Amino acid sequence: MNGIGRVAIAGLGLVGGSLARDLAARGVHVSAFDHDEATLRAAHDAGAVHAPLDASLAGSAAADIFVLAVPVHAAPAVLERAAPHLTEMPLITDVGSTKQSIAEAAERLGLGDRFIGGHPLAGSHTAGWAATRTGLFREARVYLCPGIRARQSATALAAALWQGLGATPVVIDAGAHDRLLAWTSHLPQALATTLAASLAAAGVRPHDLGPGGRDMTRLAASPAALWTGIALDNATELMPALAHMERGLAEFRAMLEQRDAAALERLFERGRQALDG
Amino acid sequence: MNGIGRVAIAGLGLVGGSLARDLAARGVHVSAFDHDEATLRAAHDAGAVHAPLDASLAGSAAADIFVLAVPVHAAPAVLERAAPHLTEMPLITDVGSTKQSIAEAAERLGLGDRFIGGHPLAGSHTAGWAATRTGLFREARVYLCPGIRARQSATALAAALWQGLGATPVVIDAGAHDRLLAWTSHLPQALATTLAASLAAAGVRPHDLGPGGRDMTRLAASPAALWTGIALDNATELMPALAHMERGLAEFRAMLEQRDAAALERLFERGRQALDG
Repeated sequence: MNGIGRVAIAGLGLVGGSLARDLAARGVHVSAFDHDEATLRAAHDAGAVHAPLDASLAGSAAADIFVLAVPVHAAPAVLERAAPHLTEMPLITDVGSTKQSIAEAAERLGLGDRFIGGHPLAGSHTAGWAATRTGLFREARVYLCPGIRARQSATALAAALWQGLGATPVVIDAGAHDRLLAWTSHLPQALATTLAASLAAAGVRPHDLGPGGRDMTRLAASPAALWTGIALDNATELMPALAHMERGLAEFRAMLEQRDAAALERLFERGRQALDG
Repeated sequence: MNGIGRVAIAGLGLVGGSLARDLAARGVHVSAFDHDEATLRAAHDAGAVHAPLDASLAGSAAADIFVLAVPVHAAPAVLERAAPHLTEMPLITDVGSTKQSIAEAAERLGLGDRFIGGHPLAGSHTAGWAATRTGLFREARVYLCPGIRARQSATALAAALWQGLGATPVVIDAGAHDRLLAWTSHLPQALATTLAASLAAAGVRPHDLGPGGRDMTRLAASPAALWTGIALDNATELMPALAHMERGLAEFRAMLEQRDAAALERLFERGRQALDG
């Protein structure tokens, strides 16, 4: 596929596992490791992984691309373990929701010339091998974050990888990525989680929700450990976004307190227009 | 349908219009008024309304059921206009998202014995006749709020109306309804609107959102005037729900500030479990 013959993947969750399925379906040789033995066996049985790897990740050395697809909080340690086997790897990439800290880890490990951070906008509240499927990345945006020392050839290979799966690569600076995602993804997740926890505290049961309430709490089902890692890793950007949202809700409440219909209607109108175009 | 021969409807928006379509499809004679002439004509042309009514609503007198399906802020005035023609009406009901204030208006107008507040959980961010469709209420929950003076026969007729359309009536006190809906519907709407406005203020464009961010802002497209009316009418219940949410977000932010992974993971876990069962 696009001149890519062999790909090694560490982590067969929703993103890593779906990536393995897509690549195998396109004739790419996939080697992979997952800390859960049953997952690794299931992926092998499904034909998505041709060569299971052991925890040393030594077997990944022969691949064209190494993809780190473990939770954000685990990523630096796994990359460190893999590093000795990546000395000749043309492209080392990942799929995490934050890009700054993993880029720094890659730089520290001497992989900065071939590491291109990656983040496909294809996650969901589902998780694990059972949630994987082919076509997950079709028409998805994939952020690519080449560091300052990254080789042009590594960026091109990362773009080719995702384009081959029907996704659209968008190159962005790692810092800008983390700032943007704090608003577009991490803040929405924090809201869904806080709303769901607030509803439970207020004694509301899930079946009391209508279609709108269900939309607004769906993300709360996302894996807790995964999101703890993302939120902490991007805390610097997420905190001001949360503070902005708190102020917005306090203003909403003040408009109600003052029975200010004109201000409220302008706010609802601003919310509507924010989504146009 | 269920012994219901004629229904008069004031307002042919998403809910009133879809109700007209469903009733007409089941052989019920539908008379209706809408302040928008083009809407009334379209509903007539579509066969959903057999007898267009004028603004006096005088023609509704012959119906078995009068359904008030105008925005919450307009409902009391329209009910007052209709009241002289509802002296013999076995059931007067509505479809608004708040139930306390309209019940009080009905009581003031001397309609308390036959008024049963109604609220089908079938709204959406779409609006107007163009958004109407048959089957909107299938498998939807419909809250029914009989006042203290309501006739048992009126409650039974309201239940028969919605059951005939495949919905599930749930009887609840008007005050309890408004308290519950502040959490399950009005708070989620306020969050979606505030989030969308915050994203716009932060310079985020709609196409920057992934699937999760889109879920969390979908409701912001809801009609501004309609929701201004709902929020103001239920301000007393909505304000403490907003304050609770502000505190929840501030706690989330404090956990980030303190890099408290254990507390964060417990919070994400609480959010997950809130949706189970």
